[in-house]
Amino acid sequence: MSSERKYQTMALNLKDYVASYPDFPEPGVFFRDISPLLENGEAYKQATNEIVDYAKKIGAEVIVGPEARGFIVGCPVAYELGIGFAPARKKGKLPGKTVKETYGLEYGQSALYLHEDAIKQGQKVLVTDDLLATGGTLAATIKLIEDLGGVVVGTAFLVELTKLHGRDKLKGYDILSLMKY
Amino acid sequence: MSSERKYQTMALNLKDYVASYPDFPEPGVFFRDISPLLENGEAYKQATNEIVDYAKKIGAEVIVGPEARGFIVGCPVAYELGIGFAPARKKGKLPGKTVKETYGLEYGQSALYLHEDAIKQGQKVLVTDDLLATGGTLAATIKLIEDLGGVVVGTAFLVELTKLHGRDKLKGYDILSLMKY
Repeated sequence: MSSERKYQTMALNLKDYVASYPDFPEPGVFFRDISPLLENGEAYKQATNEIVDYAKKIGAEVIVGPEARGFIVGCPVAYELGIGFAPARKKGKLPGKTVKETYGLEYGQSALYLHEDAIKQGQKVLVTDDLLATGGTLAATIKLIEDLGGVVVGTAFLVELTKLHGRDKLKGYDILSLMKY
Repeated sequence: MSSERKYQTMALNLKDYVASYPDFPEPGVFFRDISPLLENGEAYKQATNEIVDYAKKIGAEVIVGPEARGFIVGCPVAYELGIGFAPARKKGKLPGKTVKETYGLEYGQSALYLHEDAIKQGQKVLVTDDLLATGGTLAATIKLIEDLGGVVVGTAFLVELTKLHGRDKLKGYDILSLMKY
């Protein structure tokens, strides 16, 4: 399996499966769209397998992804490893007891929620999202996890927009980004 | 693998991993929450494997799931089969050329969008979501797929709320629901 993965890594350049849109969803935002990657089974599998390998290496016990593209990246990783996935959701989506964190986005402001029982004390957590931009969403997600006593052992992204310095918000946390722009 | 899956099917009763909340998100709605299932690696794997087996049987070539819990159900199935996943998204989420369909929800109204190039003419599509309630979201998703020339060979849900008669909106389509209430 490992050698097969290596072959796939050499076979596909994942950047060939990212589309770019200037001024979306607002003027001044240059949007990197991972839809072509998802829609190509081979590319989606290759990208996921790279994150699976990373999750194994860091010993992740549960995966948390922010709504909604964080689900697309994290869910198959959780499935492959046979571990749980806890969705960090927007307002009004999670019933029951939750923790909440407000944050600023690249465009606008929002809040994320996580079920209080989603993370156990001391549990090793991998956080996934499609994109590392300013890092606001991720920092909020990490805060939720740590409020519940979880230990963030790593973060994984398909795409990192290096000019937006998201890494500065994630200082002290390990980062895997499959593609950099 | 098949025998292992059978064993897992006997081992876990998936309904033990569904939480119930009356009057969420609005009065009169009885909400079935699949979070406990997702957060349990074994339950999530078992549920996904049942849908993987179904997807193989019906010959699915691509999976479409509506935002956002349709991603959680469909993405690991696509990953396991090495086929693509196309997200059906809400307003303002997909850049580029899309098709649009408006629909009524169990509570409120909404619209879904799909990239024009997400589905190829004649492609066999499995549609996934967490919940079959009134069937409005699913009927809209099916319409988007068929507008693009796709053939919906099946639909798969974790939970079906039989009293809401979602099956009536999906007449002529094959349905797999792992749990019925």
